[in-house]
Amino acid sequence: MKIILDAMGGDNAPAAVVEGAVQAVAAYDVDIVLVGREDEVRACLRECEAAENERISVVHAPDVIDMHDDPATAIREKKEASMTIALRMLASGEGDAVVSAGSTGALLSGATLIGKRIRGIRRAAMAPVLPNEKYGAVLIDCGANVECTPEYLLQFAFMGAFYSKQILGCPEPKVGLLNIGTEDTKGGELQKAAYALLQKASEDGRIRFIGNVEAREVFSGNVDVVVTDGFSGNVLLKGIEGTALFLMKLIKKSMMRTIVSKLGALLVGKELRKLKKLFDAGETGGTPMLGISKAVIKAHGSSDARAIASAVRQAKQFVESGVISEIEKHIDDMKTA
Amino acid sequence: MKIILDAMGGDNAPAAVVEGAVQAVAAYDVDIVLVGREDEVRACLRECEAAENERISVVHAPDVIDMHDDPATAIREKKEASMTIALRMLASGEGDAVVSAGSTGALLSGATLIGKRIRGIRRAAMAPVLPNEKYGAVLIDCGANVECTPEYLLQFAFMGAFYSKQILGCPEPKVGLLNIGTEDTKGGELQKAAYALLQKASEDGRIRFIGNVEAREVFSGNVDVVVTDGFSGNVLLKGIEGTALFLMKLIKKSMMRTIVSKLGALLVGKELRKLKKLFDAGETGGTPMLGISKAVIKAHGSSDARAIASAVRQAKQFVESGVISEIEKHIDDMKTA
Repeated sequence: MKIILDAMGGDNAPAAVVEGAVQAVAAYDVDIVLVGREDEVRACLRECEAAENERISVVHAPDVIDMHDDPATAIREKKEASMTIALRMLASGEGDAVVSAGSTGALLSGATLIGKRIRGIRRAAMAPVLPNEKYGAVLIDCGANVECTPEYLLQFAFMGAFYSKQILGCPEPKVGLLNIGTEDTKGGELQKAAYALLQKASEDGRIRFIGNVEAREVFSGNVDVVVTDGFSGNVLLKGIEGTALFLMKLIKKSMMRTIVSKLGALLVGKELRKLKKLFDAGETGGTPMLGISKAVIKAHGSSDARAIASAVRQAKQFVESGVISEIEKHIDDMKTA
Repeated sequence: MKIILDAMGGDNAPAAVVEGAVQAVAAYDVDIVLVGREDEVRACLRECEAAENERISVVHAPDVIDMHDDPATAIREKKEASMTIALRMLASGEGDAVVSAGSTGALLSGATLIGKRIRGIRRAAMAPVLPNEKYGAVLIDCGANVECTPEYLLQFAFMGAFYSKQILGCPEPKVGLLNIGTEDTKGGELQKAAYALLQKASEDGRIRFIGNVEAREVFSGNVDVVVTDGFSGNVLLKGIEGTALFLMKLIKKSMMRTIVSKLGALLVGKELRKLKKLFDAGETGGTPMLGISKAVIKAHGSSDARAIASAVRQAKQFVESGVISEIEKHIDDMKTA
């Protein structure tokens, strides 16, 4: 298994990406190609004492796509950027997956342009996994498609369900439509039309649709795939992140308030730190772009080495799971007519 | 000050509403009219040993609007329901505010139909306050209007800013547009057009617009009013609720894991319970419907007596703040042309 890493993507590139690559080859039995400015990348490898690591190779890319580039045109305009070259290598079969912590928009348009969508899939979607006490819940889409049609949402439902089954191990994923109430009359035109499509697919036995779900239900374990447009999904995902951070900060502060609570904090600290990992991008790794014909994983922009290594592990798992061929096999089930 | 309470609204009506009324008159120097089935309401008053309380009166309403009624038509069809009569009394000046824990949709359409919108306001909006370490952040809209125009959002911005100033005490509220990125090109057509309107109003000195804000920023204290359509706002609000509940549950569980952590839990428990109140509907009280020409406050459906009393306190504060006349006075500032 060979993973292509965009060495220049993310806030801490290339150092964190290179260090993550070194950690990943040691831990997960993968080969890695680092794509980026060769001198910088090799300097980082020397820093990690990995200049001679035979599982890591370097491909030179003179240019970098950064946050100031227009995501829609960056890939076309910067043909020699690390992300562009990484995706071209993936398309031509020089590796099994691309991992990048760079611009989400550029990676998405690049994946579509160079990696290509699976035949029959209208739009690729970002599908992070929210923690719960069961298999976790796939949230699809969470930012790739601001404006969606009911058909996109139907396809997201299927893709999310295959991901839940093949990667999270949920035997029969329950799919819910994100809405502002559970009645089938809730929401706008998009939700009402998507509801009807999902209901029909469910009646035909093609998917297991449980109806509308409210945002407060996503952690309940009663829903395995939460389907929504990229705008609401992004708002939900970032709202969750913000709430968890705010609450953890307040907890820390309130525990430091009295001598008694400080003592208590010492005693509960170990357990709480384990908990923090649940909402930690560094632990959960990257977000797959579902609907692309090759494995493309977006790592968090703020990824440290550990987060990059997690994303590599996730890329490997994604390739091995066969979720792409499952989507390809069932493309006719997602037809609307 | 006389508050009209829908005695039959909410999961725990009428007992919790009546008990809340008794608590409120004792604590907040208000008179209360309980509207509902007189025999049931009087029985509850006797339970609370408040049958002779001279600050509490009862108005009989034979009918009840429940969750099975269509929100759009319930008020028109059930003319003798407690909510309908409460709103009619408000419109005719028999009280200063209505508080109801009943159907949100019915209360909103009733408030618009009977209470009337402020002249020039296109749509009323629900505006709950999210906790932060400064004044709190007004989230407007959070469910009243699934489909919005840019003009609605502009008006929400102004109404939210007056609420933040008059009620939360924020001297110069910073208004942000909820979006999936901070660049002005982000979002769909609605966000782009609303951004332009808000930017113009800001340049004219009519409002203080700080640009797009992502959902993870709502607790930062850097934004005092978060403007969005009712769909995304509802998703965000319920996502926050769900995350806080899930996290609190996990914390409790993780603290019970070992003898050491159990002991620690005893020591930090008191401080954590204080924290829990921040996200507790019972503490924060109700949500005002901004844009209506009279004070209408929606209490949470699951309100207990304490939550009802909080909502009464909030209704009183809302009336005293003069936020409605501030909105009326500045209606020309909200013009789009």
